[in-house]
Amino acid sequence: MKRTRFDSDICAIARTLDVIGDWWSVLIIRDALGGVRRFSDFQQKLGAAKNVLTTRLKELVAAGILKTGPASDGTAYREYLPTEKAQALLPVLVALAQWGSENLFDKGETCSVPVDAANRRPLAPIKLHARDGRVLSASDILMTKFGKC
Amino acid sequence: MKRTRFDSDICAIARTLDVIGDWWSVLIIRDALGGVRRFSDFQQKLGAAKNVLTTRLKELVAAGILKTGPASDGTAYREYLPTEKAQALLPVLVALAQWGSENLFDKGETCSVPVDAANRRPLAPIKLHARDGRVLSASDILMTKFGKC
Repeated sequence: MKRTRFDSDICAIARTLDVIGDWWSVLIIRDALGGVRRFSDFQQKLGAAKNVLTTRLKELVAAGILKTGPASDGTAYREYLPTEKAQALLPVLVALAQWGSENLFDKGETCSVPVDAANRRPLAPIKLHARDGRVLSASDILMTKFGKC
Repeated sequence: MKRTRFDSDICAIARTLDVIGDWWSVLIIRDALGGVRRFSDFQQKLGAAKNVLTTRLKELVAAGILKTGPASDGTAYREYLPTEKAQALLPVLVALAQWGSENLFDKGETCSVPVDAANRRPLAPIKLHARDGRVLSASDILMTKFGKC
């Protein structure tokens, strides 16, 4: 079934999901932030079909999450570079990684997560804070409507 | 095209994506955390086809993210309740909402995001920290492999 589009949805979660499109997009952003630049390298790393990858890359460029540029080595290849909007998605990627490593891996199992460049260790678990600094637990958070962005 | 499954992938992001399945699952979790309990209410709120919703709810129960129970009002309906694993996905939902409200809404446009129950205000923007407390920017984070979970 074709997924409904959420363009006009006032829910910021749904609207983000509409732009990132599907899980391929998230994995492409992961790899772009990890230094992958070329179509053939994305393809090899992800194992995605060419047409799927082409569509997703175009969508991410249209959304301003990736931008294209000439190859850094002077060859005729085009490269895909992550923008600030891609970097701003790091909390999403880190949150997905932290939930997965906590819930879907056995203790001691080999596992890949984003790491601190200074010491190659996983980041601290994300904590949710109120504007006044209070740490919020699940019961302190409402999923209800808020007025204006 | 059918999405490749990432079960055996050592990347914690990919493995989480494999469990949450698709965007419907994320929206179901959003609504479950927001107090929706019954099939018909999920259906009405999401506008998802019955078969899609049935499949996604089953998957979320199998993954331990939702659990079923008798209706709180004593009727014959079954209810779907979020577990701790669902609550632990709040950082993912909040990160998606914050990116969306920052990048996909006009200033002053009506927008719905998770809010602080104490004052109905949006949460503070998520910051990523190292284990020793340093705030990390995008350039401080590597998407490379880490050894063990």
